[in-house]
Amino acid sequence: MDQKVSGGKDPLVLFMPSGRRGRFKKGTHVLEAARQLGVYVESVCGGRGICGRCQIEVQEGNFAKHGITSANSHISAFGAKEKRYADKRDLKDGRRLSCSATIEGDLVVDVPQDVQVNAQIVRKAADTRLIARNPAIQMCYVEVEGPDMHKPLGDLDRLKQALERDWGFSDIIVDQHVLPQVQSILRAGKWTVTAAIHKDMETARPSLIALYPGLKNEAYGIACDIGSTTIAMHLSSLLSGLTIASAGTSNPQIRFGEDLMSRVSYVMMNPDGCEAMTKAVHIALNGLIEEVCAESGVDPTDILDAVFVGNPIMHHLFLGIDPTELGGAPFALAVSGAVHSWASDLSLALNDGTRVYMLPCIAGHVGADAAAATLSEGPHRQDEMMLLVDVGTNAEIVLGNKKRVVAASSPTGPAFEGAEISCGQRAAPGAIERVRIDPETLEPRVRIIGVDAWSDEPAFAAMAEKSGVTGVCGSGIIEVIAEMYLAGIITEDGVVNGALAERSPRIIQDGRTFSYVLWEGDTRLTITQNDVRAIQLAKAALYAGIKLLMDKQGIDHVDRIGFAGAFGSFIDPKYAMVLGLIPDCRLDKVKAVGNAAGTGARMALLNRDYRREIEQTVTEIEKIETALEPKFQEHFVDAMALPNKIDPFPMLAEEVKLPEKAEPAIVTEGAGGGRRRRESRRRRD
Amino acid sequence: MDQKVSGGKDPLVLFMPSGRRGRFKKGTHVLEAARQLGVYVESVCGGRGICGRCQIEVQEGNFAKHGITSANSHISAFGAKEKRYADKRDLKDGRRLSCSATIEGDLVVDVPQDVQVNAQIVRKAADTRLIARNPAIQMCYVEVEGPDMHKPLGDLDRLKQALERDWGFSDIIVDQHVLPQVQSILRAGKWTVTAAIHKDMETARPSLIALYPGLKNEAYGIACDIGSTTIAMHLSSLLSGLTIASAGTSNPQIRFGEDLMSRVSYVMMNPDGCEAMTKAVHIALNGLIEEVCAESGVDPTDILDAVFVGNPIMHHLFLGIDPTELGGAPFALAVSGAVHSWASDLSLALNDGTRVYMLPCIAGHVGADAAAATLSEGPHRQDEMMLLVDVGTNAEIVLGNKKRVVAASSPTGPAFEGAEISCGQRAAPGAIERVRIDPETLEPRVRIIGVDAWSDEPAFAAMAEKSGVTGVCGSGIIEVIAEMYLAGIITEDGVVNGALAERSPRIIQDGRTFSYVLWEGDTRLTITQNDVRAIQLAKAALYAGIKLLMDKQGIDHVDRIGFAGAFGSFIDPKYAMVLGLIPDCRLDKVKAVGNAAGTGARMALLNRDYRREIEQTVTEIEKIETALEPKFQEHFVDAMALPNKIDPFPMLAEEVKLPEKAEPAIVTEGAGGGRRRRESRRRRD
Repeated sequence: MDQKVSGGKDPLVLFMPSGRRGRFKKGTHVLEAARQLGVYVESVCGGRGICGRCQIEVQEGNFAKHGITSANSHISAFGAKEKRYADKRDLKDGRRLSCSATIEGDLVVDVPQDVQVNAQIVRKAADTRLIARNPAIQMCYVEVEGPDMHKPLGDLDRLKQALERDWGFSDIIVDQHVLPQVQSILRAGKWTVTAAIHKDMETARPSLIALYPGLKNEAYGIACDIGSTTIAMHLSSLLSGLTIASAGTSNPQIRFGEDLMSRVSYVMMNPDGCEAMTKAVHIALNGLIEEVCAESGVDPTDILDAVFVGNPIMHHLFLGIDPTELGGAPFALAVSGAVHSWASDLSLALNDGTRVYMLPCIAGHVGADAAAATLSEGPHRQDEMMLLVDVGTNAEIVLGNKKRVVAASSPTGPAFEGAEISCGQRAAPGAIERVRIDPETLEPRVRIIGVDAWSDEPAFAAMAEKSGVTGVCGSGIIEVIAEMYLAGIITEDGVVNGALAERSPRIIQDGRTFSYVLWEGDTRLTITQNDVRAIQLAKAALYAGIKLLMDKQGIDHVDRIGFAGAFGSFIDPKYAMVLGLIPDCRLDKVKAVGNAAGTGARMALLNRDYRREIEQTVTEIEKIETALEPKFQEHFVDAMALPNKIDPFPMLAEEVKLPEKAEPAIVTEGAGGGRRRRESRRRRD
Repeated sequence: MDQKVSGGKDPLVLFMPSGRRGRFKKGTHVLEAARQLGVYVESVCGGRGICGRCQIEVQEGNFAKHGITSANSHISAFGAKEKRYADKRDLKDGRRLSCSATIEGDLVVDVPQDVQVNAQIVRKAADTRLIARNPAIQMCYVEVEGPDMHKPLGDLDRLKQALERDWGFSDIIVDQHVLPQVQSILRAGKWTVTAAIHKDMETARPSLIALYPGLKNEAYGIACDIGSTTIAMHLSSLLSGLTIASAGTSNPQIRFGEDLMSRVSYVMMNPDGCEAMTKAVHIALNGLIEEVCAESGVDPTDILDAVFVGNPIMHHLFLGIDPTELGGAPFALAVSGAVHSWASDLSLALNDGTRVYMLPCIAGHVGADAAAATLSEGPHRQDEMMLLVDVGTNAEIVLGNKKRVVAASSPTGPAFEGAEISCGQRAAPGAIERVRIDPETLEPRVRIIGVDAWSDEPAFAAMAEKSGVTGVCGSGIIEVIAEMYLAGIITEDGVVNGALAERSPRIIQDGRTFSYVLWEGDTRLTITQNDVRAIQLAKAALYAGIKLLMDKQGIDHVDRIGFAGAFGSFIDPKYAMVLGLIPDCRLDKVKAVGNAAGTGARMALLNRDYRREIEQTVTEIEKIETALEPKFQEHFVDAMALPNKIDPFPMLAEEVKLPEKAEPAIVTEGAGGGRRRRESRRRRD
């Protein structure tokens, strides 16, 4: 390290929250000390005291446990640069500019993660997690020498010299679109400019991607999750890390096919299908860009970096890659590694120099969205064995801890999304989302989206008048079937028990099988035997995939479960477990993790170290292809039962009274047993 | 080096023409030996014996002076790979495939520089210099593993693995446009493909810029000199180095302004002037691309690299940069260093991945064309002091040797190009290009472009009937004025001697001055006093620039002179020296170097080492700005005389009888003398 980091009696400085520490000579600028310790402190102006980005706070108090006896007043007095800055701009009480303040004794320095210097609308997004920053874009203010006929170096060449001198960037590549602007920008800024430098990989040469006259004290990025149903975009400041606008829209590719496989089919049937779908998603993205920019007042050309995630088919279609190969074995991805590209090559209306980064895909059905969720939830960073599930037409499943991570996808089909269910519908006002069935009377009470009361409460009728009760959404289906099971209306094999028709008029015959009348009003909503079967098939596929990964890990329960995506946000973990969608786990350790893929995308946007982390992690994840695993089919059949015939649920049983089983809850595993149970079920069906 | 390079008794192998040598174990492939010694031997297929690019010849005979006693038969017999190749394709007698042939004893190996494996029209261009190759584009054939569900790595990722395994390229960047093609190309080639890898700088990561199914055994590049008047393009094979087509066209920017400064004015007066001129040159370039491709049958998308040179204003306009700053002091270039760009960003109809390289500019008026001419003629590589001159509206002048190179530009104006001359015209049939004047009778005889006879020969009249005699072109103007001087018609101060009107009717009065009637026919062509003055001004500017550089080098004559450009190709060096355009030099050391800028561009196209060489050389060249040099004006005035009053011409005097001077040929230098002579001239005028 630098000679300024010295030992012995020099002051000790501790940076929080990183905890990095070192001894520095008195008079060392705090910014310099941070740099030497590798503590990320933003600075656009390079220590000239004009950008105000390098703010820190000195913590007062007793830090004896850190070897610091008195941290008070061990920083220099307010300097000229700070006074000038505080006069012009607002410098909050207690804040100092680390390019001005010097170390005068032992110090504990707090580096705020969200220094804001511009008035920005800060949207309270669902996930406002603070993310440690080290973005791939660096804004670098420099003063450039004017032209000199004695040394006829070009304007750009002198700018490069300044960037090397002040910021240490040598060997800079200059984007073609910047060239024609260099001279006028340098003159407009009176030979001071701010260069936007893109440097993602350590091995990459830095690129000059945009240039601004004078001090440009802001730069933005977008993080975007392209789902098959919904596209969500967040606009973040690359300099404060704050999310300042968010927007979402339906994926317009829906008009080419509701689910992924129908979109692949569309491409296979239509020569220009891929191009049309790529164009559709690009147009939707440009709409979202307009929306987040309008909301925040940000100029789209100030968005300099963009991160995208999506499942493999969304990923390919976004990049203009024909997804046909993903439609059948061997499910070959065109590219699985991270993709570095240009926004202009992808028809995005941003700056001509804006870069695009896509997280790696894990496997043919486990995409960059699963990688992003992994990055966000970090099973690979923890000791606990974590299960991360994102349910869609394909469920993406990641299971592991810091020792080993395995991943697979399961073909759950669209039942969880309400498709294939007779009374199923999308989540919208009027849809039943909560259900309770009295085990004695078999009478249900429900709650619908948009109404805060249960159906047996007096207020309900008036409140529900507007929307009516129209159907059952995905989370409602899970609850009603789980409650039917808990009330004994369906057996552990999923048969609607016709014998109960004697006890309740809600059990009705429907051809050769029976149905349960969940709602009787303008519409009659019934849960049919086929509905139960559809959910059984979907949950069996999901559980079989999870079970396969648990086999690989050699475990029979997990420590934590994260439910990603919209489906995961609304279902009650208890009912998911009652149905046997997920394995046994302490209920308080089962969490909806929201749009974890979007959070992972934001992490990759704000910190290139996270890009390297997930790239490395993805190469280490063991990919399990369910289609190649003989046990998958067996697990699938066994998982048809409620909760299932594979695993016991002792932790669940502590909180929920499960019906008594026809067979013992703990069964001996094995192909023979499986076959026997399957046969018995076939007989009973 | 590799363990295969061993000492002692192992066979000694000498590669020609490089002269590199080393000892290798018996059985080592010749290709491997070449690689270890850094001898460039092409191979597209990576040693599979299918591309035929790695051909060598074994030299027979006695190479005792190289320590090789018997080189005969010390190579392995024709192997299976070679037989297979020779059966399918033509392998010339004596040629071997170095990936098949092994070293079995001492060998002298000749590496042919122009291995052709495809039938190509090879155009005999003016300059067919063979250029040692090490292009920035490498064609790499690989066999890629098919997809495997157990290891769900993407197709592109497996391609990258193969490129690393077989060719050592790690950390490859993939162009966005390649992504959507990867899967279909891999399948079309049955998992064999040829990747075009661009790697120019050592510090750059290699880029995958194009991909072809199977073996793609050709790749092309264009080298282009964008002159203010003419644009010249050469199409070369990057794999054989041969130029296979050339084309030229007028620069369409001429319609915006005849000379450089009028084009800058156009930009200053018209808001879209820069864009219009950039577009015009791009359209012209695309026309030339069509032309060279049609001539050679090459697909434009197989052109993967492109090198451009031009003077600073052409350079800027090609890149879309407003050249206004170059129109006035301090003549600031937007960029002086080499420019790396993409053909698609410059609207060139080539492959989407085609790269563009522009040589560095030396100074505000000494452009990438001068850098290319320097690279071609190599003053910086030789002991002799070489003067390199490219005459245009601005003369670009480079003077130096391997110790030190200086450069400047001189504002010669358009007189040398026939503008500002009463009877001047562009070089075209009917234009006088050669002149002899009898010193006794003062009668001229001339030759015109398109006619092989002198005007005093009987055949002339009939042969000249078609075109007539229409004017005097640039080289003719130099000759007629030099001959007028040698015949005593004009004095060393450039005055047309009216006293001679007594002796010859060709001397006629024209107001207060006299003219010389050069041609009397349908048209009368006269050389007026003003014409002489215009040439005097132009040549004085040129010589003053040269003289300034000679001052810097501390020399009074040069060892070699290279005349670049069209003007230089046609003027007779003797007359250029008689008029004092160039300093004294042995006449046999004055050479027209043709389109040296174009040759330099070809060198940079075919060998990236030349790019590094000229980049380094340009940083080392001392740039002299004539406008800042007090002595320039003085030299200019002194150089008005014929030949001039600055320097003696003893070497010229040995070959040409120069008129006796009114003042001694060898004069004492100094500002006083200059002023005195200027005054005396003013009196005499």
